[in-house]
Formats: sequence, C-alpha cells, structure tokens
Amino acid sequence: MSRPRISNDDGPRAAGGGLIDRRALFEGALGAAVFAASAVAAEPLVVPDWSMAPGGPFIPYGQPSKFESRVTRVATPPANPATPGVGASRTPHHLLDGMITPNSLHFERAHGGIPDIDPERHRLAIHGLVKRPLVFTMEALARYPMTSRIAFIECGGNGGSLSQPVAQKVDAQAIRGLVSCAEWTGVPLSILLDEAGVDPAAAWVYAEGADSAGMSRSIPLKKAWDDTLVCLYQNGERIRPSNGYPVRLLVPGFEGNMNVKWLRRLKLVADPVITKDETSKYTILLDSGKTWNFVWPIEVNSFITRPSPGVGLKGPGLYEISGLAWSGAGRIRSVEVSADGGKSWAQAALQDPVLPKALTRFRLPWKWEGGPAVLQSRSTDEAGSVQPTRAAMIAERGLRGQFHVNCIQSWAIDEKGEAANVYA
Amino acid sequence: MSRPRISNDDGPRAAGGGLIDRRALFEGALGAAVFAASAVAAEPLVVPDWSMAPGGPFIPYGQPSKFESRVTRVATPPANPATPGVGASRTPHHLLDGMITPNSLHFERAHGGIPDIDPERHRLAIHGLVKRPLVFTMEALARYPMTSRIAFIECGGNGGSLSQPVAQKVDAQAIRGLVSCAEWTGVPLSILLDEAGVDPAAAWVYAEGADSAGMSRSIPLKKAWDDTLVCLYQNGERIRPSNGYPVRLLVPGFEGNMNVKWLRRLKLVADPVITKDETSKYTILLDSGKTWNFVWPIEVNSFITRPSPGVGLKGPGLYEISGLAWSGAGRIRSVEVSADGGKSWAQAALQDPVLPKALTRFRLPWKWEGGPAVLQSRSTDEAGSVQPTRAAMIAERGLRGQFHVNCIQSWAIDEKGEAANVYA
Repeated sequence: MSRPRISNDDGPRAAGGGLIDRRALFEGALGAAVFAASAVAAEPLVVPDWSMAPGGPFIPYGQPSKFESRVTRVATPPANPATPGVGASRTPHHLLDGMITPNSLHFERAHGGIPDIDPERHRLAIHGLVKRPLVFTMEALARYPMTSRIAFIECGGNGGSLSQPVAQKVDAQAIRGLVSCAEWTGVPLSILLDEAGVDPAAAWVYAEGADSAGMSRSIPLKKAWDDTLVCLYQNGERIRPSNGYPVRLLVPGFEGNMNVKWLRRLKLVADPVITKDETSKYTILLDSGKTWNFVWPIEVNSFITRPSPGVGLKGPGLYEISGLAWSGAGRIRSVEVSADGGKSWAQAALQDPVLPKALTRFRLPWKWEGGPAVLQSRSTDEAGSVQPTRAAMIAERGLRGQFHVNCIQSWAIDEKGEAANVYA
Repeated sequence: MSRPRISNDDGPRAAGGGLIDRRALFEGALGAAVFAASAVAAEPLVVPDWSMAPGGPFIPYGQPSKFESRVTRVATPPANPATPGVGASRTPHHLLDGMITPNSLHFERAHGGIPDIDPERHRLAIHGLVKRPLVFTMEALARYPMTSRIAFIECGGNGGSLSQPVAQKVDAQAIRGLVSCAEWTGVPLSILLDEAGVDPAAAWVYAEGADSAGMSRSIPLKKAWDDTLVCLYQNGERIRPSNGYPVRLLVPGFEGNMNVKWLRRLKLVADPVITKDETSKYTILLDSGKTWNFVWPIEVNSFITRPSPGVGLKGPGLYEISGLAWSGAGRIRSVEVSADGGKSWAQAALQDPVLPKALTRFRLPWKWEGGPAVLQSRSTDEAGSVQPTRAAMIAERGLRGQFHVNCIQSWAIDEKGEAANVYA
C-alpha cells in the first residue's frame, strides 16, 4: 500500500536556491531518504515517568503546556509608564502555524488601555440621521440573526518598522505581529440599520468605542451596508477584553482601527467626522508633506514565518518554508517564494480553505545546502495586485509613511542557519 | 442607501410553528418593526466609569472577561476520586457561536489522566512492519512539511445519554458536549510512512499514547495513507495538554479515541491488535448481545444550540435558531429545522465555509408566538445519509448501544420560553 517513488534524490526543483515542487513531495517523488537525517533511527524508546502514574485532572478553562510559556504576545514598551495599556502587543507568528490565531494571542492595539466592561451595563446606540434611534442591551443584540466569517484584522501600522532607513534586528513578531485572523460572529450591521431606518441624507457611520480614548472612526455607509458585522464572538467564545468585549465592529479587509472595539455608538452622519483617530494617525505621510487620508483597504501582503529570526535551521537538509498572505481586496490568488533574493521564484502551495479577507497559509519545500540565502515571499490577490519591492514602495511614497506598509519582506539566512531581517 | 422593504409584517413563512425564510430576512422582506421589541429606543446613553479612566495593561497570554466565568467545560464526576483526570469534560456549545471551538473549551476525554509531557524528552516511534524503524524528536517532526485542516473530533460516546429510557433533564453541553472543531496542523502520516517504508504485509497501524492508560487503537492502513495527520498545532498554537500535547493523531471523521493523543508509537501490523480501548468500549452493543466492532466514521448528526436548556426565550418575538451539524462522511449537504416536533420542516442556512468533516453552523429565523413548541434539527450529508429519529435508531440497534448515537435531538419550549430535553 505504499506509493510509487520516482527517485531517491531530492526531487524536481521549482526555482533557484533549492526550492522544490511541493507536488513532488506529496506524490512521493522525493524518495524516502531525504528526511531521514531528522529521524533518530537507532534510539531505543524509554518509558517516561508520565506514562507510569495517573495524569492530571480536567481543567474547566484550559491553558497551554507550561513548556510553551515563551509563546506570548509582546507589547511595545508604553510611551507613558502610567498607561501600560496604551500601545500595541503583537502575535508571535514565528511560533504558530495554520491560519487561525488563538484568542489569547490575537494582536492588541489600544489607545486608552483595555476597559473592563460589564456587559449588563454596556449599551450600543444607533442614532443620528435615522428614523428611529435605537439603544441595544447586549442581551437584545444576541437575539438577532448572526453570521460568522473567518477574517484577518490588521493594524494600519503593521510593518511600519520597514520604513526605517536601516533594517532593524527584529523578528517576524516585531515586524508583522499586528495582523491576526479569527472566526468572528455577529449581527450584520445592515439588519440594525434597516431597523433604525437610515435617512437618505446619511453617507457615513461614525463609530465610537467605550474605552477612555473614545477611539472613533468614520466608516463609509456603503461598507456598513455591505459586509460589516457587529460582533459578539471570536473563535467561538465571547470576544476577549483586549479585542473589544462585549461588542466590536468587524469591517472586513479595512485597516484595524476601523473595526472599532468596545463599540458604544454608531451615528449616521452626512460627512466624515475627521476624528483624531483618522487624522493624527492612520494616514500616509508623503515626502511632499501631503497625506493620503481614508486609505481603508489593507493592501496585498505576505511574509515567511518559518524560517525567520529566532526560528532558524539546524543543519543542511530539507525544510518547509511557510508563511502567511492576505489582502483586503479579497482572496489570495498566488504566493511565490524566492530563496535567492528575488532572482527566481517558485509557486508555493496555498492551504485550503483560501477565504476572502482572511489569512492564507502558504507552504513550499526547500533544500538548504548550508550557504547564505535570502528568502522572500510575494503574494498576488484576486484583484491582480502584487506586493511591491521595498524600493518600489519607497519610490512611490517615500520613507515617512509608516502605515499600510506591504512591501516584500526579506530574511537573510547565514551559514549557521540563522535568519535576520534585511533589505534586499 | 437603504434597501427596499416588502412589508412590515413578519415575512414569508418557511414551515409551521413560525419558522421564517432566512433569505427574506437579508433581503429586507421582514420589514423594520419585527426586532424593535428588543431595542430600548428611549433609554439615554450614560458615560460609564470605564470610559473615564485609562483601562488595563496588555497581557502576554490573554484570558476571557471575568464576566464570562460561567463559560467553562464541565467534567463528568470521576468514578474514582483518586483519578480526577479519568473521564470526560464537555464543550459548552449552548454558550458559543461559530464553527471553531476555542482551545480552552475543546472537549477532553482521558483514560489515565492528562500527562504533563516534556517535549524535549518525548519521542514518536514508527516501527513494526517497516523497512526502517524511525524515532522522531518533536524538533525533527516540526521540520517536516505540514498541512492544516479544520476538522471536528467527536467522542464515540457523545450523545450516549439519549439511550436512556427516559429523557434526562440536562442541557446541550451534557448531551452533545463531546464534539468540538479546530484547525489542526501537522505532518501527513503518509510522508512518515513513506520514509519508514511500509512492508507489503502491513494492513493496520497500531497507535499508542504516552498517557498512563497507554490508550491505543488499531487504524486501517488505508486511512493512515489517506488523510491522517500527525498534529502539532491546534487553532494556530501548539496542542493543549488535554488534547495531546506535544503530538496527536487527527484521523478525520473517525471516532474520537482513534485520534490518539500524546502519540508515542505507530506500529505497522498485519491484523488489528484488539486493544482494550476498542473492545471494552467504542463498540455498539445490540439487544442480541452481539456488538458492532470497528465502527469508525462518525454518522451524520446535528443539534440546536440556541435556544436550548439554559438558553431560553425572553418573551414572544423573533429569534434565531442556531446549531451545529457534522458528518464523518464529508460535507453537510443540508439541515432542516422543525418547530412542531417533526411535522413540518424548513431549510436552514448553512454558514460558509462548509468544510468536509468539520462542524457546520446552521441558522434560521423563528417567530415564537409564546406557546409550546418542539424544536428539532435534521441534517443530511453529501453521502445522502440523513439523521434518524430516536425511534428508528432504537428499532435498528436497541437501547444498549451508547456509542455513535446520532438521532434527532428534540428541545421542548414551554410557555415561559424555557427549553428542555425531550423524546419526541
């Protein structure tokens, strides 16, 4: 019942630097010997202590193994030590796999700390240019028809460190940790707008959080009607405090802070409100001193999670290159991987299901010969947009804009197998 | 920019007892007034304390709100108080939504407690009828090509209480809490079998856990080649201790204990081993005293999570009926819902993505008039199998078999809006 093998070498190459066609792997064309170096055939099995006595009890709300204690979010040191919840905390993508980000590791961004909201006392109002102003208890909201979708949320500032003139010695978590992906469940905003009765003069929805920053954004009414959700659940359970408990917006594909957390009110208005949270930040400053404002959809993007800084290679041989791709425009169409700094490219496999406006995992086998290499990934979305090189991005907008940075990410691999952030 | 409305009544009916066509809802055909009873239009917004002072800090590994402390697994009291980790602990589906079960709430089943395994010391062996016996460290395993899939795992004993002659006064968690769904990521077992080189005489894989019970099952080799995964990750992060840390099998669609946790060895053998874990339990005892053995795939199934016991109705009006469906044979093709104990049925909407061998969320609007009702769901899978009534299931196999119970579940709603488990 074994599958046929074509050869015993390392199989068909897909591009330079040792990139291998993934189909060959799953059709058995790589032969049996290529992975053997990573198995320890001669070692006898021992019976460890944990097999010889009854194990521990059930825990009502489970936690990770104590051996995984290093797998945590990492927060940027706060500008003001008196407000440690003002800033951001990042997902450790280099230590994860799959497309779902577990709730405990979903990135956090807060402008006024994380409020501890009593859902019995919290209210959501819909008012302004409507026929019937409405105020909802959380219990009332939970009674409405809901829908679920797996979607990424990305802070508009993710990748901003790539705007630094010199490549920082930091890891994937520091550079790309402000994007995460979860299954969000909530009430389509369109149902609530229907109930309130939108005045024809309304063109925008002002969304405001109940945090002490009153974080607020103006959302175009068309998007509110389209696919915006008023969310109560994240990966099955009620949303976590740092992600907006008890209720937040999901504005699929739009920059993170439009997905307003701790949602308190939605005011229908004729014009954008020009809040501090859409002017002091979340605009793209050009070299000319002008800014791009209201740049909502997240651009096509990707990065390699493994190998990456801190997750290096242990000697020459076969590895899997794996990473994440996403686009606010819809589905990822393809991801290419280079092991020679962009000279040649191979198609990576995309992990099913490939969902619109969700993280997509890509994978490609790679035989590392032990020499220096520069790994890159380049994604294309279903709208046909392709990630630019860093040079092309800078040529377009200069180095001052630290938002919506979606250029190709480069990891240099040295002879020891260690990875470093470089500009290539 | 509002959408057209057809009428101001409660829209087209889809079946008896107030079941409503979901498309009407999203096309605006229900009108604006139907939900208004659940909004509190006159209440003024107040500014609560949490909006007036900086919120809390970032937490490296996040936790739920303290207001959600009731959302936990519930363990069956252990038969022997000295071994509190022997038994099962169930997912609170009545308090969740979506298709993903968060890792902290994924059901647990353990036969010898939950071992606390050091991944540095744990090994996985592949031996028996192979050309090259192999022993893997976890670090070596993590180097192999991986794949991810969203899949349910269900204990073969889930729903066993429906075999009781009298309907128990218990909730959905107690009856159906031994099924959960996660994104699992791991190495296809086929790659490891290729590397070991399977002897043509092998027809089965004996899989053994490192727990003190040495929980073990015989898996047909064909399934091992097909879609079985050696998993390291669950919903993005490393598998939790109670779900097999550091490594477990995923045998998609097959009964839970074949998805061996704390996986220690895979021995290729010619015949099934007839372990205690596939004879003393996980067989279906017929009235004749004979058993059905090696009943692997989970049959088509479903239940309603909301409303359900403990999640009742607060006065007459419009609600969403929501629940979960699944089948070990592949995708769910359709779910029908009845509000009159099976006399009439309406098609529920299936939440995208509908994935093979994964939980599928279904939803249907319902106008409750305030009288007694009996809610049921009936799912059909892509193989054409349909859930039987409880009476039909008993006619086939009697009342002694407490495994693979997939009959239609009934919740009686009383005049107060409270739900109870009944046989209808």
